[in-house]
Amino acid sequence: MDNYVFGVDLGGTTVKIGLFETDGTLCETREIPTRKEHDGAAILGDISGSIREMIAGNDLTEEQIIGIGMGVPGPVDREGTVNKCVNLGWGVFNVEQEMQELLGFKTKASNDANAAALGEMWMGGGKGYRDIVMITLGTGIGGGVIVDGKIAPGFNGAAGEIGHFTVNEDEPEACACGKHGCLEQYTSARGVARMAKKFLEEHDDETILREYTMDEISAKEVFDAAKAQDPVALRLVEEFGKMMGKALAQTACVINPQIFVIGGGVSKAGDIVLDVIRKYYVQYAFHASRDTLFKLASLGNKAGIYGGARMILDETGNV
Amino acid sequence: MDNYVFGVDLGGTTVKIGLFETDGTLCETREIPTRKEHDGAAILGDISGSIREMIAGNDLTEEQIIGIGMGVPGPVDREGTVNKCVNLGWGVFNVEQEMQELLGFKTKASNDANAAALGEMWMGGGKGYRDIVMITLGTGIGGGVIVDGKIAPGFNGAAGEIGHFTVNEDEPEACACGKHGCLEQYTSARGVARMAKKFLEEHDDETILREYTMDEISAKEVFDAAKAQDPVALRLVEEFGKMMGKALAQTACVINPQIFVIGGGVSKAGDIVLDVIRKYYVQYAFHASRDTLFKLASLGNKAGIYGGARMILDETGNV
Repeated sequence: MDNYVFGVDLGGTTVKIGLFETDGTLCETREIPTRKEHDGAAILGDISGSIREMIAGNDLTEEQIIGIGMGVPGPVDREGTVNKCVNLGWGVFNVEQEMQELLGFKTKASNDANAAALGEMWMGGGKGYRDIVMITLGTGIGGGVIVDGKIAPGFNGAAGEIGHFTVNEDEPEACACGKHGCLEQYTSARGVARMAKKFLEEHDDETILREYTMDEISAKEVFDAAKAQDPVALRLVEEFGKMMGKALAQTACVINPQIFVIGGGVSKAGDIVLDVIRKYYVQYAFHASRDTLFKLASLGNKAGIYGGARMILDETGNV
Repeated sequence: MDNYVFGVDLGGTTVKIGLFETDGTLCETREIPTRKEHDGAAILGDISGSIREMIAGNDLTEEQIIGIGMGVPGPVDREGTVNKCVNLGWGVFNVEQEMQELLGFKTKASNDANAAALGEMWMGGGKGYRDIVMITLGTGIGGGVIVDGKIAPGFNGAAGEIGHFTVNEDEPEACACGKHGCLEQYTSARGVARMAKKFLEEHDDETILREYTMDEISAKEVFDAAKAQDPVALRLVEEFGKMMGKALAQTACVINPQIFVIGGGVSKAGDIVLDVIRKYYVQYAFHASRDTLFKLASLGNKAGIYGGARMILDETGNV
C-alpha cells in the first residue's frame, strides 16, 4: 500500500494543497481562499477540512499519510513557531503543533520562500543539486537557501533575504522594510518597473517604452523591449543585471552554492534574465565560485507545495 | 577507559596537533614545522609520526582513539578532497583517505577557517550558539559558516569568503585573488595598515601615527591611536567599521546567523572593533537580523585544533 504526503502553500490570498506520492508524483491539487478575518483563526481548520476531503476522495486511509509540510508567509523557527505572519493576521504560535493536533498527522513548517527553494531542488530547476540559492523576483525579492539538501532557515528564519542588501545609500524612497536603497527596490518585478518609469521621467530618449502609459509598464514590457533591442530597455536590463550579478557574487562568497535558481515574475522573461545576471556575476565572483550555475525555476506557483511535501519527507526520514 | 580525538591545524609554517578528551579537555599540544619541500610530500607522514608519539607518550591504546579532525589551508569538498593548497605545494587528492591509510584512524578534513569557526563554537567565543559566522581579520580575511552546529563548507569549500566582497570598483590595486576592491584590501590587518599609510601619504593632518615609520604601522598602531582619541585614527576606524558592518549586514541577509565571532590579529584591539562594526551593522541590517550578537574569538591560534577535534566527534556521532 503506497504512502502519501501533503504539501501546503499558505499564501495571503489562497492556500494551495497538493497530495503527493513519496516519489514526488503530484496526485491532486486544491486551492482554497485564505480566510484572514479574526486574525486568521479559521485558516488551519479550513486546511484540515480540505485535507480530510482529499483523503476520503482518493480512497486513502489515515495510515497511508506520512504527514504534512507547510510553507507559511513569514519567519518560522526550527521548532515550528511562527513569528508573526502580518498578512495572515497571525501572531506568535507553534503552527506545527496546532496543525498536528487538528489532524493527527506529523507536520513540518517553514517559510514559504524556503519551501519554494526546496521544491525547486526536488522537482524543478534545481533538480539534481543539493546546494542551492533560490531567488524569487516578484513584487519583492524572496530567497531560500538549501545547504546539502536541507533548508537553512537562519536563526530567525531570515536567511535568503538578499532583497534587503543595501545597494544605494542615496536612495530617497524607503523600501517596504523601512531601509533605503535595498536591492528589491531596483530588481524585483516592481523594482524593474519603478526604475523604467524613473528613467522615462528623467530622460528624453526615444524608446518603445513610451508607447505605454506609466501604469502599463511592468518588468515584462522592459524585458520585451530589450529583446527587441530597444536601447533604453537594454540599458535598464544591464543595470538590473549588474545589481543582481554583484549581489549574487556576494551571496556566493557567503554560502557558495552550486546553483542559483531564479524564479518569480521577472524570470518569465527567460534566458535574457540569466544571461545578464551571469555576465556581471562572473566579474564580481570570487574565483572559487565563478562557475556557479544559473537556471530558471520551473515549478511556477507549485514550487511551494512540492517544497512542503519534500519537507515532511525529509523530516520523517522518507528521502 | 576514556576515548580521545586528535585535532590538527595544518598551516603554511607549522602544524599544531592537539590531543583531546571527548568533552573538549585539551590534554597535550605539539607543534611541528610544515615541511613544504617536494610538494609537501612529507607533511602527512610527519603528522602521523607525532600522533603516534603522543599516543605512546600518554599511555593510550589505539582503541581509545576515535579519530582525527584536520583543518587545511585550502578548499576541501564534502568527500575530503583538497583542491590545491597553494602554500603547501599540494595538488588535488583525498586527504582524509590518505591520512586514514597512514594511521588507521578515521579522519575528517575541512578548510582551516571552517575548522576555526567550529572550534570557536565548541569552546570559544561562540560557545552555546549553533548558527555562527566567524570572521578572521588577519593578513587576509578568513571566514567560516556554521549552520545548526555543522560546518557549511559550500559547494567548492568557498563559503565564508566574505573578504572577497567587491566593495570598491574603483580600486587601482589588485587583491591577492586578482579582483580589485575586495573587502580584505581594506579591513584585514594588512588592509587597515594599508589604508592608514595611504591616508598619511595623501593628507597633511596631524596624528600620532606620524610618530611611526611607514613600516612600523600595523592595525595595532591604528586601533591604539583611536583608543587615544587620535582624530585620524578614529576616522580610519570608522571607515573600517562601516565597511565591515555593511558586509556583515549583507552576510546576515544571506544566512542569518545568531552570532558573529570576530578573530584574527585585528580583533586583539578588543571591544573597539566589535563596537564600531556593530554601530554600522545595525544601520544596514534587515530588521529580522538586526539583533545578531557580536563576540570576540577567544581560542586564539588554538581554534583550529579545537575545531578539528569537534569535527571528528561530529563525524563519528560522538557529540
